Amino acid sequence: MNAPSKPTIGVFDSGFGGLTVLRELLPLIPGADYVYVGDTARLPYGSKSRVTIARYAMESAQFLLDRGAEVLVIACNTATALALPDIHSVAGGTPVVGVIEPAAHAIRPALPGQSAHVLVLATAATVGSHAYEIALSKLALVATEKACPLLVPLIEEGWIDHPVTREVLRIYLREALDICTPDVVLLGCTHYPLIAPLVAQTLRELGCPARVIDSARTTAVSVSAIVPHNASPLSAAGATFTCYATDSVEKFARLGSHFLGQPIPNVTLLDLGG
Amino acid sequence: MNAPSKPTIGVFDSGFGGLTVLRELLPLIPGADYVYVGDTARLPYGSKSRVTIARYAMESAQFLLDRGAEVLVIACNTATALALPDIHSVAGGTPVVGVIEPAAHAIRPALPGQSAHVLVLATAATVGSHAYEIALSKLALVATEKACPLLVPLIEEGWIDHPVTREVLRIYLREALDICTPDVVLLGCTHYPLIAPLVAQTLRELGCPARVIDSARTTAVSVSAIVPHNASPLSAAGATFTCYATDSVEKFARLGSHFLGQPIPNVTLLDLGG
Repeated sequence: MNAPSKPTIGVFDSGFGGLTVLRELLPLIPGADYVYVGDTARLPYGSKSRVTIARYAMESAQFLLDRGAEVLVIACNTATALALPDIHSVAGGTPVVGVIEPAAHAIRPALPGQSAHVLVLATAATVGSHAYEIALSKLALVATEKACPLLVPLIEEGWIDHPVTREVLRIYLREALDICTPDVVLLGCTHYPLIAPLVAQTLRELGCPARVIDSARTTAVSVSAIVPHNASPLSAAGATFTCYATDSVEKFARLGSHFLGQPIPNVTLLDLGG
Repeated sequence: MNAPSKPTIGVFDSGFGGLTVLRELLPLIPGADYVYVGDTARLPYGSKSRVTIARYAMESAQFLLDRGAEVLVIACNTATALALPDIHSVAGGTPVVGVIEPAAHAIRPALPGQSAHVLVLATAATVGSHAYEIALSKLALVATEKACPLLVPLIEEGWIDHPVTREVLRIYLREALDICTPDVVLLGCTHYPLIAPLVAQTLRELGCPARVIDSARTTAVSVSAIVPHNASPLSAAGATFTCYATDSVEKFARLGSHFLGQPIPNVTLLDLGG
Protein backbone atom coordinates (compact mmCIF):
# COMPACT_ATOMS: atom_id res chain seq x y z
CA MET A 1 0.00 0.00 0.00
CA ASN A 2 1.75 3.14 -1.14
CA ALA A 3 -1.30 5.39 -0.96
CA PRO A 4 0.32 8.22 1.03
CA SER A 5 2.92 8.80 -1.70
CA LYS A 6 0.39 8.98 -4.54
CA PRO A 7 0.10 12.47 -6.00
CA THR A 8 -3.37 14.01 -6.28
CA ILE A 9 -3.91 15.77 -9.60
CA GLY A 10 -6.84 18.18 -9.97
CA VAL A 11 -8.28 18.61 -13.46
CA PHE A 12 -10.80 21.31 -14.29
CA ASP A 13 -12.97 22.17 -17.30
CA SER A 14 -16.27 23.93 -17.91
CA GLY A 15 -17.65 20.62 -19.21
CA PHE A 16 -16.54 17.14 -20.27
CA GLY A 17 -14.07 18.20 -22.98
CA GLY A 18 -11.28 18.24 -20.39
CA LEU A 19 -11.78 14.50 -19.97
CA THR A 20 -9.66 14.10 -23.13
CA VAL A 21 -6.79 15.56 -21.06
CA LEU A 22 -7.57 13.13 -18.22
CA ARG A 23 -7.62 10.28 -20.77
CA GLU A 24 -4.06 11.22 -21.79
CA LEU A 25 -2.95 11.62 -18.16
CA LEU A 26 -4.14 8.20 -16.90
CA PRO A 27 -1.59 6.09 -18.84
CA LEU A 28 1.17 8.74 -18.57
CA ILE A 29 0.92 9.14 -14.78
CA PRO A 30 -0.85 5.96 -13.73
CA GLY A 31 0.17 6.09 -10.08
CA ALA A 32 -1.91 9.17 -9.24
CA ASP A 33 -5.32 10.00 -7.85
CA TYR A 34 -7.29 12.30 -10.12
CA VAL A 35 -10.09 14.65 -9.14
CA TYR A 36 -12.02 16.12 -12.08
CA VAL A 37 -14.44 19.05 -11.92
CA GLY A 38 -16.78 19.78 -14.86
CA ASP A 39 -18.59 23.06 -14.25
CA THR A 40 -21.43 21.96 -16.53
CA ALA A 41 -24.09 24.15 -14.90
CA ARG A 42 -22.28 27.29 -16.04
CA LEU A 43 -20.97 26.26 -19.46
CA PRO A 44 -20.20 27.49 -22.02
CA TYR A 45 -17.56 29.82 -20.61
CA GLY A 46 -16.80 31.17 -24.09
CA SER A 47 -19.66 33.66 -24.14
CA LYS A 48 -18.98 35.09 -20.67
CA SER A 49 -16.89 38.02 -19.49
CA ARG A 50 -13.33 37.66 -18.21
CA VAL A 51 -14.32 38.62 -14.66
CA THR A 52 -17.08 36.00 -14.53
CA ILE A 53 -14.86 33.27 -15.99
CA ALA A 54 -12.10 34.12 -13.50
CA ARG A 55 -14.57 33.83 -10.60
CA TYR A 56 -15.87 30.47 -11.83
CA ALA A 57 -12.36 29.10 -12.43
CA MET A 58 -11.13 30.26 -9.02
CA GLU A 59 -14.07 28.53 -7.31
CA SER A 60 -13.25 25.25 -9.05
CA ALA A 61 -9.54 25.66 -8.33
CA GLN A 62 -10.25 26.25 -4.64
CA PHE A 63 -12.43 23.13 -4.51
CA LEU A 64 -9.65 21.04 -6.07
CA LEU A 65 -7.08 22.46 -3.64
CA ASP A 66 -9.41 21.65 -0.73
CA ARG A 67 -9.62 18.09 -2.10
CA GLY A 68 -5.82 17.89 -1.81
CA ALA A 69 -4.72 18.62 -5.38
CA GLU A 70 -0.93 19.02 -5.63
CA VAL A 71 -1.12 20.07 -9.29
CA LEU A 72 -3.95 21.97 -11.01
CA VAL A 73 -4.58 21.15 -14.67
CA ILE A 74 -6.75 23.77 -16.37
CA ALA A 75 -8.14 21.55 -19.14
CA CYS A 76 -10.24 24.40 -20.52
CA ASN A 77 -9.08 26.73 -23.27
CA THR A 78 -11.25 29.67 -22.21
CA ALA A 79 -10.19 29.52 -18.55
CA THR A 80 -6.54 29.11 -19.59
CA ALA A 81 -6.75 32.06 -21.96
CA LEU A 82 -8.56 34.41 -19.60
CA ALA A 83 -8.01 33.33 -15.99
CA LEU A 84 -4.57 31.71 -15.59
CA PRO A 85 -3.16 34.56 -13.42
CA ASP A 86 -6.27 34.45 -11.18
CA ILE A 87 -5.95 30.68 -10.76
CA HIS A 88 -2.24 31.08 -9.92
CA SER A 89 -3.20 33.60 -7.21
CA VAL A 90 -5.59 31.07 -5.62
CA ALA A 91 -3.11 28.20 -6.04
CA GLY A 92 -0.27 29.86 -4.15
CA GLY A 93 2.77 27.61 -4.66
CA THR A 94 0.81 24.73 -6.21
CA PRO A 95 1.80 24.24 -9.86
CA VAL A 96 -0.84 25.19 -12.45
CA VAL A 97 -0.75 23.79 -16.00
CA GLY A 98 -3.02 25.21 -18.72
CA VAL A 99 -3.68 23.79 -22.18
CA ILE A 100 -2.13 26.53 -24.29
CA GLU A 101 1.54 26.95 -23.30
CA PRO A 102 2.33 23.19 -23.43
CA ALA A 103 1.04 22.98 -26.99
CA ALA A 104 3.15 25.94 -28.09
CA HIS A 105 6.25 24.47 -26.43
CA ALA A 106 5.65 21.05 -27.99
CA ILE A 107 5.48 22.51 -31.49
CA ARG A 108 8.63 24.67 -31.44
CA PRO A 109 11.23 21.83 -31.31
CA ALA A 110 9.36 19.97 -34.08
CA LEU A 111 9.65 22.99 -36.40
CA PRO A 112 13.23 24.29 -36.40
CA GLY A 113 12.59 26.51 -39.45
CA GLN A 114 12.23 30.29 -39.05
CA SER A 115 8.96 30.65 -40.96
CA ALA A 116 7.10 27.75 -39.35
CA HIS A 117 3.35 28.19 -39.59
CA VAL A 118 0.70 26.77 -37.25
CA LEU A 119 -3.00 26.52 -38.08
CA VAL A 120 -4.98 26.58 -34.82
CA LEU A 121 -8.49 25.10 -34.93
CA ALA A 122 -10.56 26.26 -31.95
CA THR A 123 -13.91 27.62 -30.78
CA ALA A 124 -14.93 31.19 -31.59
CA ALA A 125 -14.23 32.22 -27.98
CA THR A 126 -10.69 30.82 -27.98
CA VAL A 127 -9.94 32.40 -31.36
CA GLY A 128 -11.37 35.69 -30.10
CA SER A 129 -8.91 35.64 -27.18
CA HIS A 130 -5.95 35.09 -29.59
CA ALA A 131 -4.33 33.17 -26.72
CA TYR A 132 -2.73 30.59 -29.03
CA GLU A 133 -1.45 33.24 -31.44
CA ILE A 134 0.16 35.11 -28.53
CA ALA A 135 1.73 31.98 -27.00
CA LEU A 136 3.03 30.79 -30.39
CA SER A 137 4.41 34.18 -31.38
CA LYS A 138 6.57 34.21 -28.23
CA LEU A 139 8.29 31.14 -29.73
CA ALA A 140 8.60 32.81 -33.15
CA LEU A 141 5.82 30.67 -34.61
CA VAL A 142 3.31 32.25 -36.97
CA ALA A 143 -0.31 31.30 -36.26
CA THR A 144 -3.51 31.37 -38.26
CA GLU A 145 -6.49 30.86 -35.98
CA LYS A 146 -9.64 29.33 -37.46
CA ALA A 147 -12.91 29.34 -35.51
CA CYS A 148 -14.85 26.10 -36.00
CA PRO A 149 -18.10 26.72 -34.04
CA LEU A 150 -19.93 23.64 -35.35
CA LEU A 151 -17.37 21.04 -34.30
CA VAL A 152 -18.27 20.97 -30.58
CA PRO A 153 -22.03 20.52 -31.25
CA LEU A 154 -21.31 17.81 -33.84
CA ILE A 155 -19.02 15.95 -31.42
CA GLU A 156 -21.57 16.31 -28.60
CA GLU A 157 -24.23 14.92 -30.98
CA GLY A 158 -22.00 11.86 -31.27
CA TRP A 159 -21.42 12.38 -35.00
CA ILE A 160 -17.72 11.50 -34.70
CA ASP A 161 -17.14 9.65 -37.97
CA HIS A 162 -20.13 11.02 -39.85
CA PRO A 163 -20.52 12.41 -43.39
CA VAL A 164 -21.85 15.73 -42.05
CA THR A 165 -18.89 16.20 -39.70
CA ARG A 166 -16.57 15.26 -42.57
CA GLU A 167 -18.20 17.90 -44.82
CA VAL A 168 -18.14 20.62 -42.13
CA LEU A 169 -14.47 19.90 -41.46
CA ARG A 170 -13.72 20.03 -45.19
CA ILE A 171 -15.40 23.46 -45.41
CA TYR A 172 -13.51 24.86 -42.41
CA LEU A 173 -10.14 23.43 -43.51
CA ARG A 174 -10.57 24.58 -47.11
CA GLU A 175 -11.31 28.12 -45.90
CA ALA A 176 -8.19 28.02 -43.70
CA LEU A 177 -5.91 26.49 -46.37
CA ASP A 178 -7.00 29.24 -48.78
CA ILE A 179 -5.16 31.76 -46.60
CA CYS A 180 -2.25 29.77 -45.15
CA THR A 181 0.06 26.78 -45.72
CA PRO A 182 0.56 25.28 -42.27
CA ASP A 183 3.35 22.98 -41.12
CA VAL A 184 1.29 21.95 -38.10
CA VAL A 185 -2.45 21.87 -37.40
CA LEU A 186 -3.06 22.35 -33.69
CA LEU A 187 -6.33 21.12 -32.19
CA GLY A 188 -6.99 23.97 -29.76
CA CYS A 189 -10.14 22.61 -28.13
CA THR A 190 -10.45 19.73 -25.70
CA HIS A 191 -13.34 18.28 -27.72
CA TYR A 192 -11.32 17.93 -30.91
CA PRO A 193 -9.12 14.91 -30.03
CA LEU A 194 -12.20 12.77 -30.74
CA ILE A 195 -12.05 13.81 -34.41
CA ALA A 196 -8.24 13.94 -34.70
CA PRO A 197 -8.18 11.03 -37.22
CA LEU A 198 -10.85 12.79 -39.32
CA VAL A 199 -8.81 16.02 -39.28
CA ALA A 200 -5.68 14.17 -40.42
CA GLN A 201 -7.57 12.35 -43.16
CA THR A 202 -9.28 15.52 -44.43
CA LEU A 203 -5.95 17.36 -44.54
CA ARG A 204 -4.49 14.53 -46.65
CA GLU A 205 -7.50 14.67 -48.99
CA LEU A 206 -6.93 18.41 -49.38
CA GLY A 207 -3.26 17.78 -50.21
CA CYS A 208 -1.91 19.33 -47.01
CA PRO A 209 1.00 17.44 -45.41
CA ALA A 210 0.72 19.22 -42.02
CA ARG A 211 1.14 17.23 -38.82
CA VAL A 212 -1.79 17.22 -36.36
CA ILE A 213 -1.00 18.02 -32.72
CA ASP A 214 -3.62 17.98 -30.02
CA SER A 215 -3.38 20.11 -26.91
CA ALA A 216 -4.87 17.41 -24.67
CA ARG A 217 -1.83 15.21 -25.34
CA THR A 218 0.74 18.01 -25.02
CA THR A 219 -0.85 19.18 -21.75
CA ALA A 220 -0.64 15.69 -20.27
CA VAL A 221 3.03 15.41 -21.30
CA SER A 222 3.70 18.76 -19.65
CA VAL A 223 2.05 17.61 -16.40
CA SER A 224 4.05 14.38 -16.40
CA ALA A 225 7.24 16.45 -16.47
CA ILE A 226 6.46 18.14 -13.16
CA VAL A 227 4.70 15.38 -11.18
CA PRO A 228 6.94 12.86 -9.44
CA HIS A 229 5.57 9.53 -10.62
CA ASN A 230 6.34 5.97 -11.35
CA ALA A 231 5.07 5.12 -14.81
CA SER A 232 5.79 1.40 -14.53
CA PRO A 233 2.91 -0.84 -15.62
CA LEU A 234 2.66 -2.17 -12.06
CA SER A 235 1.51 1.16 -10.68
CA ALA A 236 -1.16 1.54 -13.36
CA ALA A 237 -3.59 -0.45 -11.26
CA GLY A 238 -3.36 2.25 -8.62
CA ALA A 239 -4.75 5.13 -10.71
CA THR A 240 -8.13 6.30 -9.51
CA PHE A 241 -10.34 9.14 -10.67
CA THR A 242 -13.31 10.91 -9.10
CA CYS A 243 -15.57 13.14 -11.15
CA TYR A 244 -17.67 16.08 -9.98
CA ALA A 245 -20.18 17.95 -12.14
CA THR A 246 -22.20 21.06 -11.29
CA ASP A 247 -25.23 19.92 -13.35
CA SER A 248 -26.84 16.60 -14.37
CA VAL A 249 -24.49 13.82 -13.21
CA GLU A 250 -26.31 11.35 -15.47
CA LYS A 251 -25.58 13.44 -18.58
CA PHE A 252 -21.98 13.90 -17.46
CA ALA A 253 -21.45 10.15 -17.06
CA ARG A 254 -23.11 9.37 -20.39
CA LEU A 255 -21.48 12.03 -22.59
CA GLY A 256 -18.25 12.10 -20.62
CA SER A 257 -17.50 8.41 -21.21
CA HIS A 258 -16.97 9.14 -24.93
CA PHE A 259 -14.38 11.76 -24.03
CA LEU A 260 -12.63 9.66 -21.39
CA GLY A 261 -12.73 6.53 -23.55
CA GLN A 262 -14.03 4.45 -20.64
CA PRO A 263 -17.12 4.34 -18.42
CA ILE A 264 -17.41 6.88 -15.61
CA PRO A 265 -19.00 4.84 -12.82
CA ASN A 266 -19.70 7.60 -10.29
CA VAL A 267 -20.24 11.32 -10.73
CA THR A 268 -20.94 13.52 -7.71
CA LEU A 269 -23.09 16.63 -7.96
CA LEU A 270 -21.15 19.71 -6.86
CA ASP A 271 -22.66 23.07 -5.91
CA LEU A 272 -20.29 25.94 -6.69
CA GLY A 273 -23.04 28.60 -6.52
CA GLY A 274 -25.05 30.43 -9.19
CA MET B 1 -48.55 62.81 -29.95
CA ASN B 2 -50.33 59.76 -28.63
CA ALA B 3 -47.40 58.43 -26.58
CA PRO B 4 -49.30 57.97 -23.31
CA SER B 5 -51.76 55.55 -24.93
CA LYS B 6 -49.07 53.35 -26.49
CA PRO B 7 -48.81 49.96 -24.80
CA THR B 8 -45.36 48.81 -23.62
CA ILE B 9 -44.67 45.16 -24.42
CA GLY B 10 -41.80 43.38 -22.69
CA VAL B 11 -40.18 40.48 -24.54
CA PHE B 12 -37.69 38.16 -22.90
CA ASP B 13 -35.39 35.36 -24.08
CA SER B 14 -32.11 33.82 -22.96
CA GLY B 15 -30.56 35.03 -26.22
CA PHE B 16 -31.51 36.48 -29.60
CA GLY B 17 -33.85 33.69 -30.72
CA GLY B 18 -36.78 35.55 -29.17
CA LEU B 19 -36.19 38.34 -31.69
CA THR B 20 -38.12 36.17 -34.19
CA VAL B 21 -41.14 36.71 -31.91
CA LEU B 22 -40.46 40.47 -31.84
CA ARG B 23 -40.17 40.39 -35.65
CA GLU B 24 -43.70 38.93 -35.83
CA LEU B 25 -45.02 41.39 -33.23
CA LEU B 26 -43.80 44.59 -34.92
CA PRO B 27 -46.18 44.47 -37.92
CA LEU B 28 -49.02 42.87 -35.89
CA ILE B 29 -49.01 45.50 -33.10
CA PRO B 30 -47.21 48.41 -34.72
CA GLY B 31 -48.43 51.05 -32.28
CA ALA B 32 -46.50 49.74 -29.29
CA ASP B 33 -43.20 50.30 -27.56
CA TYR B 34 -41.17 47.11 -27.19
CA VAL B 35 -38.50 46.38 -24.61
CA TYR B 36 -36.45 43.24 -25.29
CA VAL B 37 -34.12 41.50 -22.84
CA GLY B 38 -31.66 38.86 -24.06
CA ASP B 39 -29.97 37.22 -21.07
CA THR B 40 -26.99 36.28 -23.23
CA ALA B 41 -24.49 36.13 -20.35
CA ARG B 42 -26.30 33.17 -18.84
CA LEU B 43 -27.38 31.24 -21.95
CA PRO B 44 -28.05 28.49 -22.71
CA TYR B 45 -30.84 27.97 -20.18
CA GLY B 46 -31.42 24.44 -21.50
CA SER B 47 -28.65 22.83 -19.48
CA LYS B 48 -29.58 24.49 -16.17
CA SER B 49 -31.83 23.40 -13.29
CA ARG B 50 -35.44 24.54 -12.95
CA VAL B 51 -34.68 26.62 -9.85
CA THR B 52 -31.86 28.49 -11.58
CA ILE B 53 -33.91 29.14 -14.72
CA ALA B 54 -36.83 30.40 -12.63
CA ARG B 55 -34.54 32.82 -10.79
CA TYR B 56 -33.07 34.14 -14.06
CA ALA B 57 -36.50 34.50 -15.70
CA MET B 58 -37.97 36.30 -12.68
CA GLU B 59 -35.06 38.78 -12.69
CA SER B 60 -35.67 39.60 -16.35
CA ALA B 61 -39.44 39.79 -15.81
CA GLN B 62 -38.96 42.21 -12.91
CA PHE B 63 -36.69 44.39 -15.05
CA LEU B 64 -39.31 44.52 -17.81
CA LEU B 65 -42.06 45.37 -15.31
CA ASP B 66 -39.87 48.15 -13.88
CA ARG B 67 -39.48 49.44 -17.45
CA GLY B 68 -43.28 49.70 -17.64
CA ALA B 69 -44.22 46.50 -19.48
CA GLU B 70 -47.98 45.96 -19.57
CA VAL B 71 -47.60 42.50 -21.15
CA LEU B 72 -44.75 40.03 -20.67
CA VAL B 73 -43.87 37.81 -23.63
CA ILE B 74 -41.68 34.87 -22.64
CA ALA B 75 -40.08 34.27 -26.03
CA CYS B 76 -37.99 31.41 -24.66
CA ASN B 77 -39.05 27.78 -24.77
CA THR B 78 -37.04 26.71 -21.73
CA ALA B 79 -38.30 29.55 -19.51
CA THR B 80 -41.87 28.95 -20.72
CA ALA B 81 -41.62 25.23 -20.02
CA LEU B 82 -40.02 25.52 -16.60
CA ALA B 83 -40.74 28.93 -15.09
CA LEU B 84 -44.14 30.22 -16.27
CA PRO B 85 -45.77 29.96 -12.78
CA ASP B 86 -42.80 31.79 -11.22
CA ILE B 87 -43.01 34.57 -13.81
CA HIS B 88 -46.78 34.86 -13.18
CA SER B 89 -46.07 35.28 -9.45
CA VAL B 90 -43.69 38.19 -10.19
CA ALA B 91 -46.05 39.70 -12.76
CA GLY B 92 -49.07 39.94 -10.46
CA GLY B 93 -51.97 40.96 -12.67
CA THR B 94 -49.85 41.74 -15.74
CA PRO B 95 -50.61 39.27 -18.55
CA VAL B 96 -47.85 36.76 -19.37
CA VAL B 97 -47.70 34.99 -22.75
CA GLY B 98 -45.33 32.06 -23.30
CA VAL B 99 -44.43 30.40 -26.60
CA ILE B 100 -45.94 26.97 -26.00
CA GLU B 101 -49.68 27.36 -25.26
CA PRO B 102 -50.35 29.70 -28.23
CA ALA B 103 -48.83 27.17 -30.63
CA ALA B 104 -50.97 24.35 -29.24
CA HIS B 105 -54.11 26.48 -29.45
CA ALA B 106 -53.33 27.57 -33.02
CA ILE B 107 -53.00 23.97 -34.18
CA ARG B 108 -56.19 22.53 -32.70
CA PRO B 109 -58.74 24.40 -34.89
CA ALA B 110 -56.68 23.58 -38.00
CA LEU B 111 -56.89 19.85 -37.25
CA PRO B 112 -60.48 18.88 -36.46
CA GLY B 113 -59.72 15.15 -36.73
CA GLN B 114 -59.49 12.98 -33.60
CA SER B 115 -56.15 11.40 -34.40
CA ALA B 116 -54.31 14.56 -35.43
CA HIS B 117 -50.57 14.17 -35.04
CA VAL B 118 -48.01 16.93 -34.42
CA LEU B 119 -44.27 16.56 -34.92
CA VAL B 120 -42.47 19.03 -32.65
CA LEU B 121 -38.92 20.01 -33.62
CA ALA B 122 -37.06 21.55 -30.68
CA THR B 123 -33.83 21.64 -28.71
CA ALA B 124 -32.85 18.72 -26.48
CA ALA B 125 -33.80 20.76 -23.39
CA THR B 126 -37.30 21.57 -24.65
CA VAL B 127 -37.88 17.97 -25.70
CA GLY B 128 -36.62 16.80 -22.30
CA SER B 129 -39.25 18.98 -20.60
CA HIS B 130 -42.07 17.45 -22.75
CA ALA B 131 -43.78 20.83 -22.41
CA TYR B 132 -45.16 20.74 -25.97
CA GLU B 133 -46.37 17.15 -25.62
CA ILE B 134 -48.21 18.07 -22.40
CA ALA B 135 -49.78 21.24 -23.87
CA LEU B 136 -50.83 19.43 -27.06
CA SER B 137 -52.25 16.42 -25.21
CA LYS B 138 -54.59 18.76 -23.28
CA LEU B 139 -56.12 19.58 -26.67
CA ALA B 140 -56.28 15.89 -27.65
CA LEU B 141 -53.37 16.25 -30.06
CA VAL B 142 -50.77 13.50 -30.25
CA ALA B 143 -47.18 14.75 -30.30
CA THR B 144 -43.88 13.26 -31.34
CA GLU B 145 -41.03 15.39 -30.08
CA LYS B 146 -37.75 15.34 -32.01
CA ALA B 147 -34.60 16.89 -30.55
CA CYS B 148 -32.53 18.69 -33.21
CA PRO B 149 -29.44 19.84 -31.28
CA LEU B 150 -27.44 20.91 -34.34
CA LEU B 151 -29.98 23.35 -35.78
CA VAL B 152 -29.30 26.22 -33.36
CA PRO B 153 -25.49 26.11 -33.91
CA LEU B 154 -26.00 25.90 -37.70
CA ILE B 155 -28.37 28.90 -37.66
CA GLU B 156 -26.00 30.86 -35.41
CA GLU B 157 -23.16 30.04 -37.85
CA GLY B 158 -25.31 31.77 -40.48
CA TRP B 159 -25.69 28.59 -42.55
CA ILE B 160 -29.36 29.29 -43.23
CA ASP B 161 -29.70 28.03 -46.80
CA HIS B 162 -26.66 25.78 -46.80
CA PRO B 163 -26.09 22.21 -48.05
CA VAL B 164 -24.93 21.07 -44.60
CA THR B 165 -28.04 22.46 -42.86
CA ARG B 166 -30.15 20.85 -45.58
CA GLU B 167 -28.48 17.48 -44.97
CA VAL B 168 -28.75 17.71 -41.16
CA LEU B 169 -32.44 18.60 -41.46
CA ARG B 170 -32.98 15.68 -43.85
CA ILE B 171 -31.39 13.31 -41.30
CA TYR B 172 -33.49 14.63 -38.41
CA LEU B 173 -36.74 14.64 -40.39
CA ARG B 174 -36.12 11.17 -41.85
CA GLU B 175 -35.57 9.80 -38.33
CA ALA B 176 -38.82 11.44 -37.16
CA LEU B 177 -40.88 10.36 -40.18
CA ASP B 178 -39.72 6.79 -39.62
CA ILE B 179 -41.75 6.74 -36.40
CA CYS B 180 -44.70 9.07 -37.14
CA THR B 181 -46.89 10.54 -39.89
CA PRO B 182 -47.53 14.11 -38.81
CA ASP B 183 -50.32 16.43 -39.96
CA VAL B 184 -48.41 19.44 -38.65
CA VAL B 185 -44.73 20.09 -38.03
CA LEU B 186 -44.33 22.61 -35.22
CA LEU B 187 -41.12 24.63 -34.98
CA GLY B 188 -40.69 24.63 -31.21
CA CYS B 189 -37.59 26.80 -30.98
CA THR B 190 -37.35 30.54 -31.56
CA HIS B 191 -34.31 30.03 -33.81
CA TYR B 192 -36.13 27.80 -36.26
CA PRO B 193 -38.29 30.39 -38.11
CA LEU B 194 -35.11 31.32 -40.01
CA ILE B 195 -35.09 27.86 -41.61
CA ALA B 196 -38.88 27.46 -41.94
CA PRO B 197 -38.72 27.46 -45.78
CA LEU B 198 -35.99 24.80 -45.66
CA VAL B 199 -38.10 22.65 -43.31
CA ALA B 200 -41.12 22.91 -45.63
CA GLN B 201 -39.01 22.08 -48.68
CA THR B 202 -37.31 19.10 -47.01
CA LEU B 203 -40.70 17.73 -45.89
CA ARG B 204 -41.95 17.95 -49.49
CA GLU B 205 -38.81 16.17 -50.73
CA LEU B 206 -39.46 13.40 -48.20
CA GLY B 207 -43.06 13.10 -49.42
CA CYS B 208 -44.63 14.47 -46.25
CA PRO B 209 -47.58 16.85 -46.81
CA ALA B 210 -47.55 18.26 -43.23
CA ARG B 211 -48.10 21.97 -42.68
CA VAL B 212 -45.30 23.91 -40.91
CA ILE B 213 -46.32 26.13 -37.99
CA ASP B 214 -43.86 28.25 -36.11
CA SER B 215 -44.33 29.20 -32.47
CA ALA B 216 -42.90 32.71 -32.97
CA ARG B 217 -45.82 33.56 -35.25
CA THR B 218 -48.50 31.92 -33.08
CA THR B 219 -47.13 33.66 -29.98
CA ALA B 220 -47.34 37.07 -31.66
CA VAL B 221 -50.91 36.39 -32.76
CA SER B 222 -51.79 35.42 -29.20
CA VAL B 223 -50.29 38.67 -27.84
CA SER B 224 -52.20 40.75 -30.41
CA ALA B 225 -55.44 39.24 -29.08
CA ILE B 226 -54.89 40.67 -25.59
CA VAL B 227 -53.17 44.01 -26.28
CA PRO B 228 -55.42 46.94 -27.17
CA HIS B 229 -53.88 48.25 -30.37
CA ASN B 230 -54.49 50.05 -33.59
CA ALA B 231 -53.04 48.02 -36.43
CA SER B 232 -53.66 50.66 -39.07
CA PRO B 233 -50.67 51.41 -41.30
CA LEU B 234 -50.56 54.96 -39.92
CA SER B 235 -49.60 53.80 -36.46
CA ALA B 236 -46.77 51.60 -37.78
CA ALA B 237 -44.41 54.55 -37.76
CA GLY B 238 -44.88 54.77 -34.01
CA ALA B 239 -43.47 51.32 -33.12
CA THR B 240 -40.18 51.52 -31.26
CA PHE B 241 -38.01 48.86 -29.73
CA THR B 242 -35.18 48.95 -27.21
CA CYS B 243 -32.88 45.98 -26.73
CA TYR B 244 -30.93 44.99 -23.62
CA ALA B 245 -28.36 42.18 -23.47
CA THR B 246 -26.49 40.84 -20.45
CA ASP B 247 -23.32 40.10 -22.46
CA SER B 248 -21.55 41.53 -25.54
CA VAL B 249 -23.86 44.17 -27.01
CA GLU B 250 -21.84 44.14 -30.25
CA LYS B 251 -22.46 40.41 -30.75
CA PHE B 252 -26.13 40.86 -29.88
CA ALA B 253 -26.57 43.61 -32.49
CA ARG B 254 -24.69 41.64 -35.16
CA LEU B 255 -26.29 38.20 -34.68
CA GLY B 256 -29.64 39.57 -33.56
CA SER B 257 -30.24 41.52 -36.76
CA HIS B 258 -30.57 38.23 -38.68
CA PHE B 259 -33.30 37.12 -36.27
CA LEU B 260 -35.12 40.45 -36.23
CA GLY B 261 -34.82 40.87 -39.99
CA GLN B 262 -33.62 44.46 -39.59
CA PRO B 263 -30.65 46.29 -38.04
CA ILE B 264 -30.59 46.75 -34.26
CA PRO B 265 -29.13 50.24 -33.88
CA ASN B 266 -28.65 50.37 -30.11
CA VAL B 267 -28.18 47.60 -27.56
CA THR B 268 -27.71 48.45 -23.90
CA LEU B 269 -25.64 46.27 -21.56
CA LEU B 270 -27.74 45.05 -18.64
CA ASP B 271 -26.39 43.60 -15.40
CA LEU B 272 -28.79 41.08 -13.87
CA GLY B 273 -26.12 39.53 -11.60
CA GLY B 274 -23.99 36.37 -11.85
